[in-house]
Amino acid sequence: MSLDDTIPLPTEECAPDTRSRILAAADTYFREIGYQKTTVADIARTLKMSPANVYRFFDSKKAINEAVLERLIGESEAVISEIADRPGLDATARLAAAIETLHRDCTRRCEAFPRLHEMIEAAMAESWEVCRHHVARITAGFERIIRDGVARGAFEADDPAQAAACIHTAIARYTHPLLVGASPLQPAPSVEVMTAFLLRSLAPAGRRA
Amino acid sequence: MSLDDTIPLPTEECAPDTRSRILAAADTYFREIGYQKTTVADIARTLKMSPANVYRFFDSKKAINEAVLERLIGESEAVISEIADRPGLDATARLAAAIETLHRDCTRRCEAFPRLHEMIEAAMAESWEVCRHHVARITAGFERIIRDGVARGAFEADDPAQAAACIHTAIARYTHPLLVGASPLQPAPSVEVMTAFLLRSLAPAGRRA
Repeated sequence: MSLDDTIPLPTEECAPDTRSRILAAADTYFREIGYQKTTVADIARTLKMSPANVYRFFDSKKAINEAVLERLIGESEAVISEIADRPGLDATARLAAAIETLHRDCTRRCEAFPRLHEMIEAAMAESWEVCRHHVARITAGFERIIRDGVARGAFEADDPAQAAACIHTAIARYTHPLLVGASPLQPAPSVEVMTAFLLRSLAPAGRRA
Repeated sequence: MSLDDTIPLPTEECAPDTRSRILAAADTYFREIGYQKTTVADIARTLKMSPANVYRFFDSKKAINEAVLERLIGESEAVISEIADRPGLDATARLAAAIETLHRDCTRRCEAFPRLHEMIEAAMAESWEVCRHHVARITAGFERIIRDGVARGAFEADDPAQAAACIHTAIARYTHPLLVGASPLQPAPSVEVMTAFLLRSLAPAGRRA
């Protein structure tokens, strides 16, 4: 048995750990000085490694941003998926809970992370697939709830996928970091009033009162 | 008759003109290098005047931004007001036309003026009154249309002002420069699909089909 068999190559063993350390350092920089001013050289220097080594794990700052965002996004997606399948709540209550949760999480993040919008703007400009994928997953959670509500007679919607996309788009003021972060003082109805308004679009004819 | 009576003081005569020239120079700078990088000194230099002279007309860059934005905003407000009162169109058609017009104007502006979002972000952070006033005026146009629709039996809304605020907020993806400018490639239903979805919330019970 040679040494090579028992002791893994350092790069192999450390790959996941190095990747995590790069993401943690990037996350800190993005929070403290913002996405725009952070360079790959800054991240490398913090970790006492060469920029070339960082580029072995991520081929661009854009790729680092995508990985940092995917972690944040994954948390929201998991929560919405859990609410969509929550037993014991009717479809109306689940849809309201999903909207309220997205709003609360986005508000909390924007408060804790005032420069979040820079990462989001960069992703919207460069990382369309990450954004599309996220929008599609959250919308899919809404669609599951709407389909269930239609099946039980609580909702009426000819096209549940389209209704889900409309609702997800209509709540941007409450759940999109660009608007939530930039406009805490801007006028808007409460999220409860907006949710009630949108739910009226799904109410079966004759059950609107 | 003295000379003082026949020849107005230069500052008096030129005040409106100087104000307009400052706004035109600021508008050009904001478009070309963006709001953030433009300084009052840049604007003064272009006009071959001292920064102190610019400050005689506007006491801050924020005040210049507000004046530039108020001109842009005033155009949208006038168009929506005209649509709200347009004869010969029913309330549904007027509401759809108002949404479509805001969307088209915002898209056109964001394309012609890619740095518009910097001015909007600055206004949202510093010039709350300008933003609130604008939101209130556009929402008031929506409210006039909804009240008219309710009076004629085309719409049902317990609180037309609240319904108008919900609709105006729900179309942010289509009419807010921060989202329209940042996300031309981001997924969203067409503005026609969204409008139809929102109109369902206003449909009287029994007339949903």
